[in-house]
Amino acid sequence: MSRIAVLITDMFEDVEYTRPAAAFREAGHELVHVGLSAGETVHGKKEQTPVTIDRAASDVTPEDFDALFIPGGYSPDKLRAHDEPVEFVRRFVESGRPVFAICHAPQLLINAQVLRGRKITGWKSVAQDIRNAGAEYIDREVVIDGNLVSSRQPEDIPAFVGASLDMLARTGGGKARPAAPQSR
Amino acid sequence: MSRIAVLITDMFEDVEYTRPAAAFREAGHELVHVGLSAGETVHGKKEQTPVTIDRAASDVTPEDFDALFIPGGYSPDKLRAHDEPVEFVRRFVESGRPVFAICHAPQLLINAQVLRGRKITGWKSVAQDIRNAGAEYIDREVVIDGNLVSSRQPEDIPAFVGASLDMLARTGGGKARPAAPQSR
Repeated sequence: MSRIAVLITDMFEDVEYTRPAAAFREAGHELVHVGLSAGETVHGKKEQTPVTIDRAASDVTPEDFDALFIPGGYSPDKLRAHDEPVEFVRRFVESGRPVFAICHAPQLLINAQVLRGRKITGWKSVAQDIRNAGAEYIDREVVIDGNLVSSRQPEDIPAFVGASLDMLARTGGGKARPAAPQSR
Repeated sequence: MSRIAVLITDMFEDVEYTRPAAAFREAGHELVHVGLSAGETVHGKKEQTPVTIDRAASDVTPEDFDALFIPGGYSPDKLRAHDEPVEFVRRFVESGRPVFAICHAPQLLINAQVLRGRKITGWKSVAQDIRNAGAEYIDREVVIDGNLVSSRQPEDIPAFVGASLDMLARTGGGKARPAAPQSR
């Protein structure tokens, strides 16, 4: 079982959170909602799905988790206006732990300046931003590059969830990190 | 009097449309709302301000107007998922006619690939995207570079409107274009 940080704030794309979240939980993984302020309730942009933030981004480190999941919608653009979530994402990607990004989530990776030389997909409106950040944009339902799993849109969710669960299984609950039990 | 194209769709930042629009009209300028489909009504993201689209972006050319105004919010990101508004913006900037961009509006300029070497400001979340597009991001209430006037956020609207009206006055209703009466 993995402990997955879900980086989220208001205006997320509801199904890009609810469906992967349900699948991750069903597979036995734990979700910890990381946002701007612990205790606040944020909402999706279409169905106003409520999500309570467990931990502030300023209060967590990648070492607290096995993987990072970033839903899309306008949540990533709102989060990247703040330094703490951007820094958390930068450190997470650099830690080598799995990162699952869908739709507008690459906006956070762009501001974290971790995309140079990577292969990634995302919502078509951010394709040019992705290329300008030095990454290769691939128009495919799911792209896997190292620790990074990405998808474009709600229609891609089954492939996105499948690839993410596969990566969690391969890394043994995110234990691909240096002190990984299977590498001892 | 100038004929100003307002490039807009759903989820625009209400005051970034309503206040400049009121000021432009008060100064005697005409607004033509350009969007994805003529006849549709789009709405702002906070106050649901309704705006009826006069012309589809696919149906207009820069030669139909004296200036272009792009309000912020999530409208620019929604528009840039379509080729026609992006192409309209590209041709508008290249025409040399005045372009007024606030908040997230630079997202359309990025996709139009017209920012290399330009000086511009915008909402802080898009600053990295602006730099990655080859422009210089300047954190100031209004930035004027050639035919491009830009501002960051609602608080900047008075400076944004002032600089935009000044440019319209200087260009004689956008008639700085090649066939300009004052250059005959």
